[in-house]
Amino acid sequence: MINFKVVRQPLKVICIQILTLSVSLTSFFTGISFAAKLSQDTEMCLSCHSMLSPGIKADWGNSLHSKIIPSEALRRDKLSRRISNESIPEELSNTVVGCAECHTMNAEKHADSFEHNGFEVHIVVTPEDCATCHPTERGEYEKNIMSSAYLNLTGNPVYQGLINSVNGIQKFDEMKLSYTSPDEKTGFESCLYCHGTDVKVKEMKSRETDFGELEFPVLSGWPNQGVGRKNPDGSLGSCTSCHTRHHFSIRMARKPYTCSECHKGPDVPAYKVYMVSKHGNIFSSVEKDWNFENVPWTVGGDFTAPTCATCHASLIVTADGEVMAERTHQMNDRLWRRIFGVIYSHPHPRSPNTSIIKNKAGLNLPTELTGEPVAEFLIDEQEQSQRQRRMRRVCLSCHSTQWADQQFERFENTIRTTDEMTLTATKVLITAWEKGAAQGLPQNADIFDEAIEKKWVEQWLFFANSTRFASAMAGADYGVFASGRWYMSKNLQEMKDWLEFKLKEEK
Amino acid sequence: MINFKVVRQPLKVICIQILTLSVSLTSFFTGISFAAKLSQDTEMCLSCHSMLSPGIKADWGNSLHSKIIPSEALRRDKLSRRISNESIPEELSNTVVGCAECHTMNAEKHADSFEHNGFEVHIVVTPEDCATCHPTERGEYEKNIMSSAYLNLTGNPVYQGLINSVNGIQKFDEMKLSYTSPDEKTGFESCLYCHGTDVKVKEMKSRETDFGELEFPVLSGWPNQGVGRKNPDGSLGSCTSCHTRHHFSIRMARKPYTCSECHKGPDVPAYKVYMVSKHGNIFSSVEKDWNFENVPWTVGGDFTAPTCATCHASLIVTADGEVMAERTHQMNDRLWRRIFGVIYSHPHPRSPNTSIIKNKAGLNLPTELTGEPVAEFLIDEQEQSQRQRRMRRVCLSCHSTQWADQQFERFENTIRTTDEMTLTATKVLITAWEKGAAQGLPQNADIFDEAIEKKWVEQWLFFANSTRFASAMAGADYGVFASGRWYMSKNLQEMKDWLEFKLKEEK
Amino acid sequence: MINFKVVRQPLKVICIQILTLSVSLTSFFTGISFAAKLSQDTEMCLSCHSMLSPGIKADWGNSLHSKIIPSEALRRDKLSRRISNESIPEELSNTVVGCAECHTMNAEKHADSFEHNGFEVHIVVTPEDCATCHPTERGEYEKNIMSSAYLNLTGNPVYQGLINSVNGIQKFDEMKLSYTSPDEKTGFESCLYCHGTDVKVKEMKSRETDFGELEFPVLSGWPNQGVGRKNPDGSLGSCTSCHTRHHFSIRMARKPYTCSECHKGPDVPAYKVYMVSKHGNIFSSVEKDWNFENVPWTVGGDFTAPTCATCHASLIVTADGEVMAERTHQMNDRLWRRIFGVIYSHPHPRSPNTSIIKNKAGLNLPTELTGEPVAEFLIDEQEQSQRQRRMRRVCLSCHSTQWADQQFERFENTIRTTDEMTLTATKVLITAWEKGAAQGLPQNADIFDEAIEKKWVEQWLFFANSTRFASAMAGADYGVFASGRWYMSKNLQEMKDWLEFKLKEEK
Repeated sequence: MINFKVVRQPLKVICIQILTLSVSLTSFFTGISFAAKLSQDTEMCLSCHSMLSPGIKADWGNSLHSKIIPSEALRRDKLSRRISNESIPEELSNTVVGCAECHTMNAEKHADSFEHNGFEVHIVVTPEDCATCHPTERGEYEKNIMSSAYLNLTGNPVYQGLINSVNGIQKFDEMKLSYTSPDEKTGFESCLYCHGTDVKVKEMKSRETDFGELEFPVLSGWPNQGVGRKNPDGSLGSCTSCHTRHHFSIRMARKPYTCSECHKGPDVPAYKVYMVSKHGNIFSSVEKDWNFENVPWTVGGDFTAPTCATCHASLIVTADGEVMAERTHQMNDRLWRRIFGVIYSHPHPRSPNTSIIKNKAGLNLPTELTGEPVAEFLIDEQEQSQRQRRMRRVCLSCHSTQWADQQFERFENTIRTTDEMTLTATKVLITAWEKGAAQGLPQNADIFDEAIEKKWVEQWLFFANSTRFASAMAGADYGVFASGRWYMSKNLQEMKDWLEFKLKEEK
Repeated sequence: MINFKVVRQPLKVICIQILTLSVSLTSFFTGISFAAKLSQDTEMCLSCHSMLSPGIKADWGNSLHSKIIPSEALRRDKLSRRISNESIPEELSNTVVGCAECHTMNAEKHADSFEHNGFEVHIVVTPEDCATCHPTERGEYEKNIMSSAYLNLTGNPVYQGLINSVNGIQKFDEMKLSYTSPDEKTGFESCLYCHGTDVKVKEMKSRETDFGELEFPVLSGWPNQGVGRKNPDGSLGSCTSCHTRHHFSIRMARKPYTCSECHKGPDVPAYKVYMVSKHGNIFSSVEKDWNFENVPWTVGGDFTAPTCATCHASLIVTADGEVMAERTHQMNDRLWRRIFGVIYSHPHPRSPNTSIIKNKAGLNLPTELTGEPVAEFLIDEQEQSQRQRRMRRVCLSCHSTQWADQQFERFENTIRTTDEMTLTATKVLITAWEKGAAQGLPQNADIFDEAIEKKWVEQWLFFANSTRFASAMAGADYGVFASGRWYMSKNLQEMKDWLEFKLKEEK
Repeated sequence: MINFKVVRQPLKVICIQILTLSVSLTSFFTGISFAAKLSQDTEMCLSCHSMLSPGIKADWGNSLHSKIIPSEALRRDKLSRRISNESIPEELSNTVVGCAECHTMNAEKHADSFEHNGFEVHIVVTPEDCATCHPTERGEYEKNIMSSAYLNLTGNPVYQGLINSVNGIQKFDEMKLSYTSPDEKTGFESCLYCHGTDVKVKEMKSRETDFGELEFPVLSGWPNQGVGRKNPDGSLGSCTSCHTRHHFSIRMARKPYTCSECHKGPDVPAYKVYMVSKHGNIFSSVEKDWNFENVPWTVGGDFTAPTCATCHASLIVTADGEVMAERTHQMNDRLWRRIFGVIYSHPHPRSPNTSIIKNKAGLNLPTELTGEPVAEFLIDEQEQSQRQRRMRRVCLSCHSTQWADQQFERFENTIRTTDEMTLTATKVLITAWEKGAAQGLPQNADIFDEAIEKKWVEQWLFFANSTRFASAMAGADYGVFASGRWYMSKNLQEMKDWLEFKLKEEK
């Protein structure tokens, strides 16, 4: 399918000539003396792309990837090692990780590989590529529910219905609203921006460039750095969602701003809740004195309050080297309850692929419409306890046992009360359906398109979820007036009034 | 009531042994060479808690408390002194302020004192404890309306009604919504998170620990750092609301992030308004070059735009030492009008305890339902002028007289217009009550539970208040589209429509 | 008109005496050794204002204006020069730019000039004054739509209607709401805070000061730093909107916080969208390592992700000195579509003065009510392409051609879909008007005062605009649940329901 055009060869020659003439020039462009550490292939890339993509090159030039060769990186002790493989392929060991190392890795598996100046280059670097040096992280991430974010959304008819009602274009005719199926591009920049797209090669296309006409694969669903991206090599996910290109830094991944890209809106206000909490306040106030690079990450030394990464991912140690939490890229490894994006909270699913879950009513949901969990697909109590213990250990770095335990008790209580408030909203909705004031499940109709249905969605997707986040992270006001209990109680009154008005109208 | 169990003694012995064996180890753990400055008691605490609470220990290790002994701190000149007492008890003078100094202070007054390895330790350190070295600050804070925040909320039947309608669990039966009384834990993590809880010892409980079985008091309403917390020693408030544990820094208290923990939501958007103002912009843009530690705080030198603390609390001087504002922990010392959390703005209350205020209708409100202030409980014009002059002085550090005066004129105008818009909303609501479309005061019914009542609440609690904040701090858009005039005018139209629909429905 | 009172002279003498006695004192106050570089006039100002306005003085003392004399600044090479004039008037060349240089500049043109201790001082420094050294920037800014922001709002009856319905005080009588004309002060602190006021001298007024009685002009519309301010010298705009007084730094203008002062609310959420984007995340995470002062601004060197200024204003170069974007103060120089503050998006207007635009229906709008652009007033396709190419060049610093092009395709798609969703809302509204459920254009009535009209406004002013911003800057969630498609679709359902309820009610 990929077309290796011979016409590219001359350009390679030109490039090599440029390269030969300009070894010192390359060093000048990158701003760093790489000595013998750059692979010849990467030098080749840089000979043109230093000029073509100065921002990318500069970012990479500041990264660890450009500074340390894998054989050196391997020599670190276990706790401070950033490479999880026991050994690295010989040919990669003694040059830094540059353009060619990643963008030609596993070329044969990549549907987006194309001949480019003599190289088999691919556009999309994937977890499979990164796993050459970081296999443990890839393995953990595969168990991360985020790796299936694309599938969990598009493969679940319930969520697909929600997407259609949100992204479809509405028309108004003869006093009626209807909507069309949403177009692909809208999906790419809305839901799938975070969930990930299915990146596919549509065609090869020639284009005039500064170096003559060149042929490139045209990708659909590109650009995208969503957490559950389907990659052209068949792998799932994108390490660069959090380890931002082309610095790939642990520093950014540890800062809450990175998480906020997808966890800030009213449906997932983790960042906003964090920022209004004491933890977020400490972070904002004193983060400039923290060290976000050190591995392992020392509580009280490198940082004095948790960021998202501290509680959910990082390897945390004390000043005397005791491990408070093991590193994980399975983000629910320390989480026992799933509290957002769902109608009712419930124990975390066993499989990252949640589209396989079905409740008694045949809906792909982990609970019934009345809240009972679909237990067979969810982790059991023992697993819940174990995950809670892991999280609790992190809390105990700075808090007393009583503090942590009573915090958790409040959280359990709020899970219960928010689910009750959602159940009440569901009862109003079901009544509306039963009385024919709205058309829903009983009528086999869309359950997300009418005003009362949208209010019902806000009850759980915005307000109950926000309240649970506020409880989990002690971001109090988010659970009251900012997006919490105030709106849950107001929303119910308005749902009831709508139902009354509608029933009256229909008489 | 507190149980001194002999069984603890052996553990003390073990700890002391650990201590004897590890003087250098303690220094190692704390990361600081404390020489002879740590009290023996605090060394004892650290011998275990360096390991048990590494985050707390590290934070305190970075604090001034761990670095300066009170007798030295007392020697500073008046303007730069951080201790407001003229003398410090002899036994506290020559060691730094460590664990034992605070957590065993005034043991006999603390209902939460308990025997712990030979010490009478209490969990909750209170303003009364802090007043050993900082009595002036405690005295000011007692006059601060925030110190009564718990009482002002829970002791006022009007606000209690609001809480119940927000935090109560709603049920839907036979087309009617009703709600139950909110549970205690919900209160702890919502309203009382900021207002403060009533912290009480529920019982003593034994628990297995790393050092064997130990007994601890179980506290209700804990954890909590709310500004009006009722403490187990009978005192009110929590210094750590702003001076975050265990660094207790002036730096954090001076940054707006700290205030944002309680002043960010739509009901009190001070932080959001500040952040969209020119002052907030300057802070965000250049704060990293400011000095947040210096006492006194020099305008133009240490900082170039005000934070919340600058205008409301800090001791401000010019480069040549002129005092522009005296330090105060009574936050309304430079405030003449109360603009948030209330139906209508009004002069500040005389007493921090606002639950004693009653209007002619017998409601615990500082204004009538139609806006007239209940003057006898509020500061008079002379006091208002004096407070305005204090604030104006701060403005004049960077602004001309005309600038400040015309800013204040706009603010007065906006107080008038926002109160008028609230009055109009109140008239719609009263009409709804009179016509029986909603059940309220005339029916002796709940005034916060129906949809139109909730819209009325938003008119003043969200929109009018936000507009006044935007006026006070020149955060323009917050007073228009973000949460201001746009919503006030839209809300009125929707209240009127609701009333019409309801009246029609009832025919 | 300006009154030169002889009574001022004695004070000048006193000041000069103070000055003579205190040359070293001045140096002490300013904290900088200015040697011979301060003009005598500025020394005179500082002799009093160091004490009177310590914050202003300190800020200016940290600015380049206080550190470099124009004749030196002129010697820089073209790319790094900050002065755009080829030569500077002799009398300004060899002293730094101090108080007197700006506040007595062009005195004769300034209606706000007044005699002050022997000087003709004016309060409001204007783009015309700044153009003495920065004429190119002034010229560009004149073509900036922002320079006409006051006129475009107040000179357009459509927007004036919107203002009246938002800022007017509503009254409720006999089941009807009506509103009064908004007062002037409300305008100053709401819409005109950002758009700019018309600053006029109302009168001269004497006031007691620390230096005896002095006379000052009283300005209406003051204070104000709005982008389209009408100045007392007839010029438009305010350089200090972004180059904050009295530091006038390029640093602040380059940070997104500055833009957020006016571009943060739901009507113009550029800042919020940026902050949730990858670009914003990188900025927040690593800005403290960036250089915001360098001219020109090097991509990959000085910064590694764009701020607002990068894409819309700054002179951007690569490490090897290639110019990626020329500096411009015409903010739409790289923008082809106008996407906010308007009912439908459309090509940018030719003239910064948009109040001259009229559609076929006679409304001062750049599109018909059904979306067709009023082409004669808008830039043609060639100009659109050119502007897009300029922006694209900036993108290509860090992104591939395909990346940029497919990003632009998504944006075009979203322009189309959001305009369609606005059209649907407009159809519901027009139906409401036609059926008499609401009173609007057909009835020659206010089109912004009723509930359904306000919902229609939110459809375009909040939700469609936000969705376009989210598309333009890849701030995904802002275009879905935060303020985007979710609300567009919900709003339509509620508009339709309102219409049904209203029509039913009227039967």
